[in-house]
Amino acid sequence: MKILKDTIREKSKIAEGEIVRVDSFLNHQVDVKLLGEIGREFKKLFADIEVNKIVTAEVSGIAIATVVAQHFDVPMVFARKTEVATISDDKYTAEVYSYTGGKTYKMMISKEYLDEDDKVLIIDDFLANGKAITGLIELVEKSGAKLAGVGVAIEKGFQVGGKALRDEGIRFEALVTIDKIEDGEIEFK
Amino acid sequence: MKILKDTIREKSKIAEGEIVRVDSFLNHQVDVKLLGEIGREFKKLFADIEVNKIVTAEVSGIAIATVVAQHFDVPMVFARKTEVATISDDKYTAEVYSYTGGKTYKMMISKEYLDEDDKVLIIDDFLANGKAITGLIELVEKSGAKLAGVGVAIEKGFQVGGKALRDEGIRFEALVTIDKIEDGEIEFK
Repeated sequence: MKILKDTIREKSKIAEGEIVRVDSFLNHQVDVKLLGEIGREFKKLFADIEVNKIVTAEVSGIAIATVVAQHFDVPMVFARKTEVATISDDKYTAEVYSYTGGKTYKMMISKEYLDEDDKVLIIDDFLANGKAITGLIELVEKSGAKLAGVGVAIEKGFQVGGKALRDEGIRFEALVTIDKIEDGEIEFK
Repeated sequence: MKILKDTIREKSKIAEGEIVRVDSFLNHQVDVKLLGEIGREFKKLFADIEVNKIVTAEVSGIAIATVVAQHFDVPMVFARKTEVATISDDKYTAEVYSYTGGKTYKMMISKEYLDEDDKVLIIDDFLANGKAITGLIELVEKSGAKLAGVGVAIEKGFQVGGKALRDEGIRFEALVTIDKIEDGEIEFK
């Protein structure tokens, strides 16, 4: 996706540990015009699958998944990472290890909003080791819903997440794939 | 806003402590069509003010603020509540007391995305005691930006937040105001 590659080249910053900071347009400040393009592109890439729900995880998946849900004209559900009084106790949970945070956290979706009638497209901003996506897949499986596909805006192709999904035969699309980061320069596939 | 009142009447649940659970359409599962109506309504209500940035707080403000930002055709910035490696260390911070959580947390916005040239509309899903909004206002003030207005989808009129904003002369709009909750029934203003 050319516009996303251009935006990453112009506006991202490389932080220690091969972290690509996209906080100027994707996960702190949010460029809603770019999100519109991203939503349109996902709709095109997944035109052949049936989807009645978009699923993502808080925090940084929410904005992108909201706009993708607009393009598919279906509801969006975001997995909660903290216990809140505002959702039911009856929920699916998954344990997820975070490499960036160096610890395990819990992901939750209320049983009211996911069941065996659902056809789910999982959407997230980033895919690196893929632990967050694996957690979301576990929640979808526990609910009995059908996993229709997984889409991420940015795949770090030099980490294992994308390969693992493809090896499992999951329908997976990344809008851009970063092949390597060298001397502060990003090379796309 | 009739459609929002109708949706709250049909789909919300009352939990202990006068908590109105709107997780079926606003802050866990998200009805993007309803968000579209909400975005349109805020644009109409704030048609007379100049806005170049929408500001909200993670987690439950993100989806609604994304759609409002589409209607204003401006970027959205969401305040972070957790330290993340993906944003700069150079940021504005505010301490916020949460009644639901019973403790104080920190709110942060990177200095890169808010400054004295900005005209900010703060958007959130709920206003009760108003501590989260007060934290966001503090961040906007620290940045030197102009606070153009504050909009929330649902105001709990029997709590102090809305009155405090109005008393300070802040341009404030709520799409619906809940007057009281009695025997599990919601009465709107």
